[in-house]
Amino acid sequence: MKKGCKFGTHRVIEPKGTLPQPATKIDNNMEIYDNEILIDVQTLNVDSASFTQIKEEAGGDIEKIKEIMKGIVESRGKHQNPVTGSGGMLIGTVEKIGPALEGKTDLKVGDKIATLVSLSLTPLRIDEIVEVRKDIDQVDINGKAILFESGIYAVLPSDIPENLALSVLDVAGAPAQTAKLVKPGDTVLVIGGAGKSGMLCLYEAKKRVGVTGTVICLGYSEKSIERVKALGLADHYIVGDATNAVDVMNRVSELTDGKMADITINNVNVPNTEMGSILATKDDGTIYFFSMATSFTKAALGAEGVGRDSNMIMGNGYTKGHAEIALQIMRENEELRKVYEELYA
Amino acid sequence: MKKGCKFGTHRVIEPKGTLPQPATKIDNNMEIYDNEILIDVQTLNVDSASFTQIKEEAGGDIEKIKEIMKGIVESRGKHQNPVTGSGGMLIGTVEKIGPALEGKTDLKVGDKIATLVSLSLTPLRIDEIVEVRKDIDQVDINGKAILFESGIYAVLPSDIPENLALSVLDVAGAPAQTAKLVKPGDTVLVIGGAGKSGMLCLYEAKKRVGVTGTVICLGYSEKSIERVKALGLADHYIVGDATNAVDVMNRVSELTDGKMADITINNVNVPNTEMGSILATKDDGTIYFFSMATSFTKAALGAEGVGRDSNMIMGNGYTKGHAEIALQIMRENEELRKVYEELYA
Repeated sequence: MKKGCKFGTHRVIEPKGTLPQPATKIDNNMEIYDNEILIDVQTLNVDSASFTQIKEEAGGDIEKIKEIMKGIVESRGKHQNPVTGSGGMLIGTVEKIGPALEGKTDLKVGDKIATLVSLSLTPLRIDEIVEVRKDIDQVDINGKAILFESGIYAVLPSDIPENLALSVLDVAGAPAQTAKLVKPGDTVLVIGGAGKSGMLCLYEAKKRVGVTGTVICLGYSEKSIERVKALGLADHYIVGDATNAVDVMNRVSELTDGKMADITINNVNVPNTEMGSILATKDDGTIYFFSMATSFTKAALGAEGVGRDSNMIMGNGYTKGHAEIALQIMRENEELRKVYEELYA
Repeated sequence: MKKGCKFGTHRVIEPKGTLPQPATKIDNNMEIYDNEILIDVQTLNVDSASFTQIKEEAGGDIEKIKEIMKGIVESRGKHQNPVTGSGGMLIGTVEKIGPALEGKTDLKVGDKIATLVSLSLTPLRIDEIVEVRKDIDQVDINGKAILFESGIYAVLPSDIPENLALSVLDVAGAPAQTAKLVKPGDTVLVIGGAGKSGMLCLYEAKKRVGVTGTVICLGYSEKSIERVKALGLADHYIVGDATNAVDVMNRVSELTDGKMADITINNVNVPNTEMGSILATKDDGTIYFFSMATSFTKAALGAEGVGRDSNMIMGNGYTKGHAEIALQIMRENEELRKVYEELYA
């Protein structure tokens, strides 16, 4: 059996010397290396920015969506959207565990897991696309995938249904990072607060700012804002277009008496929301960009361009305990769980 | 006289509702609005990532470089490289000041200034390209530019020659952010440490880590590393390829006995150095991405992909006092100033 690298570099076909994520093509042969885990895949949860792009390219047509997805995996060996660069995650059953992992992993054959590393670096083979649930970015397939030694995963909890757990775990980094970042008394703006990761961020933010803090939710559609309002996840709600930077700034200014947000968390899966985030935040505030549609140069040059001393952080999908933090929300807030089940599971 | 928006939104042609930086086309008519400053431009200092791309596209040919630069400004109304998204800065003389700025600005007609906002949002007209100094990314032109009310600038100091000041101010954010970030005792890795912004970062890092800290410089070419070594800017030097993530990790591991860097500052103007930065940094360390070639998704998904809890910050070209901090280095370190004059002025 061949020996593999911890990070999966042995699977990189091109360009040589890179890691599987930045690689444009990786080997998706399903014969495992000694430190790999083979997964029998059940469901792909495609990253929201990626699936939005695929749906648009397909004009919403299911067969065309299938074709695009298969095309991506055929050309790259992984489901990494060439336009957005992003992936998603999957659930499946452990089928084989490489012998070099013995004693190193607590997984056993037959465990049902969600991989918490991105599909953008996960060797994947799609044999058949069984069902596309296009409203919740989930796609059932027959196929196999490989988890590298450095890959993170969560064994699916017994008290939360699979599809719900998958939806929550997909965005687990966002609420966990929010929990780490937000302090009592902060004014927090969540852009895209009515969305999948946004609602979890609102919940964590509200919990952390406490009675002296303020949480503002900005969402695009009136309907989704009404839903969040009914859940009481924020103190203020704005229905607005996050790409209209000056409007976002003015609305937040009104709500905060010109003081603006201490922390802005951007969860919107559309381009050109960097400036709105920057202008809505205090001069020395923090902006957490979780959206995979974020442009590095637009953010970096945008802040400089308006002379703002903003601390801009790139959303890291992983932080210690993120799966536990995110799943716990479903246990703590029954109303939110119901909405989540309705929308995403 | 027409009234302008503080951020210059009145100049945006498309897409409407955005700010000048993300806009694909802005109005470069040189009749000023009431809150604008007209600048008679002398020199453009093109962003390093942008100029590298332009030089490559032109195959190094001066006339072709001129043609590409003129083409960019014709189509966008600003010098924003469509491939890298980045701009640069300029020096010139204040020619007109809008009446709405009276009492708000300390500038007067005739002042020689460097604009510290990016060319990627600055209305620019090029009448003639006089000289291309392709080794130092500087281009002398006849032309005009507009500074918006929110635009930052520095009046050029009398004790530092213009071209030297321009080169230093172009990268002023990097050493200033380094100064803010680095603490005594830290292990700091500067990737691209032998370059224009890298050397200034090394200098600030070395000053801040003190005797209990360690500064490591990674550069691509042996020659440039020799230069930095002669200046004594770091404690350790690595000649290596920053795109080879695993090699970078191993080399830093060796130098730090496996402890890795607390803070990594990435100044390299080539793509695909995100993973090297992540793997060279401690699990809970900070990575400051200053390179305009940074990909948001590669960094965000890359950290998640290897299960790293990294704090990844997007380089902000502006922070309070950045011009003063950067220029001061030229006064404090005569040897470094000499190298800077030789290479970039």
